[in-house]
Amino acid sequence: MAGQIITIGRQCGSGGHTIGEQVAKILGVPFYDRELIEMTAQESGFGKEFVEEQGEHRNSSMLYNLVKNLSYSRTMPSGNSEYLQDEIFFVQRKIITELAEKEPCVIVGRCADSILKETGNSLNIYIHAGKAFKARHLMERNHVSYDEAVREMEQLDKRRASHYKYYTDQVWGLAENYHLCLDSSLIGIEKCVSVICDIYQSINAGNRG
Amino acid sequence: MAGQIITIGRQCGSGGHTIGEQVAKILGVPFYDRELIEMTAQESGFGKEFVEEQGEHRNSSMLYNLVKNLSYSRTMPSGNSEYLQDEIFFVQRKIITELAEKEPCVIVGRCADSILKETGNSLNIYIHAGKAFKARHLMERNHVSYDEAVREMEQLDKRRASHYKYYTDQVWGLAENYHLCLDSSLIGIEKCVSVICDIYQSINAGNRG
Repeated sequence: MAGQIITIGRQCGSGGHTIGEQVAKILGVPFYDRELIEMTAQESGFGKEFVEEQGEHRNSSMLYNLVKNLSYSRTMPSGNSEYLQDEIFFVQRKIITELAEKEPCVIVGRCADSILKETGNSLNIYIHAGKAFKARHLMERNHVSYDEAVREMEQLDKRRASHYKYYTDQVWGLAENYHLCLDSSLIGIEKCVSVICDIYQSINAGNRG
Repeated sequence: MAGQIITIGRQCGSGGHTIGEQVAKILGVPFYDRELIEMTAQESGFGKEFVEEQGEHRNSSMLYNLVKNLSYSRTMPSGNSEYLQDEIFFVQRKIITELAEKEPCVIVGRCADSILKETGNSLNIYIHAGKAFKARHLMERNHVSYDEAVREMEQLDKRRASHYKYYTDQVWGLAENYHLCLDSSLIGIEKCVSVICDIYQSINAGNRG
């Protein structure tokens, strides 16, 4: 019964969040992106800011981790940052697994595709886009220059890829790890939404038939 | 004016050839897969069998190349196999570029996505599928056992990936190198065809509008 849960991996600035939100609205199912930060913070006892920082990004630099440990010292227990990141991952994985068992939903990021792979119950999607399209999105959203937008998205995606590689042992953005990958800059946000809903309904109709 | 030409990269056994053929039929445009072997053989003067072997696969082993050179000695000029493979690639690239300039069409494999990338005139698609689905296809087509089918497809895809890497300097099957990637084993051949036609028409309607 594949396809009950939709997971969306996405490059920074590709519109993956918006696409997921609209798909969830059309299908009438819950949508989880930043909501997972709140849930993981509650379940783990870590501060939201720390969970947001560590729940999807990875920095193996010891200096970086030291600085981060110091700046988050008010909202996290003392300890090694890598070990704490593992803890966050395990809590997040548990939450994602439980959400997927409960009802159909849309989950953005956080290795959800890999976490749910063995259930055979997910439609795994990856949204990417051309550089100019992504930069324009970020410039509008964060009021930054083109160069700042490019630097920001390249850094973020590098850290997402590193986090994904560490926890799934897979290359982030490799087509064969997803059922459907879409270039939102060519296809358009609206068309991405309709194609995903169309395929989701087709798969689930097949399962019922 | 992106989207006039459809290129299809595909894993062995994924049904990419069939999908491309059906898309071409629905859109009423020419379809090129094995046809490119004939055209490249005519233009280059090499034998068809040698073009087929060298036009999309790569073997860097010297021993392999020596054996291949000996077995194809009737249909190819004497010389270093790697150098001849480069020649075949350049002839094939010229043919693909000329076809794309002439009229809308569907081209399967042969790095066409990368060759046409700079024209901004192609809708680049990648078709992949689960192992069992691909093996079943190959078992039916080639009348081989499951183990033989798996070995065959793994070897062929490894050589396609190596050929792609050598001529494009890119990772074969990385989502961001395509506009649309589909898992035919979950989505189904028929639905893949209709999604491709739908997106193609949507993009070209956008260009006209």
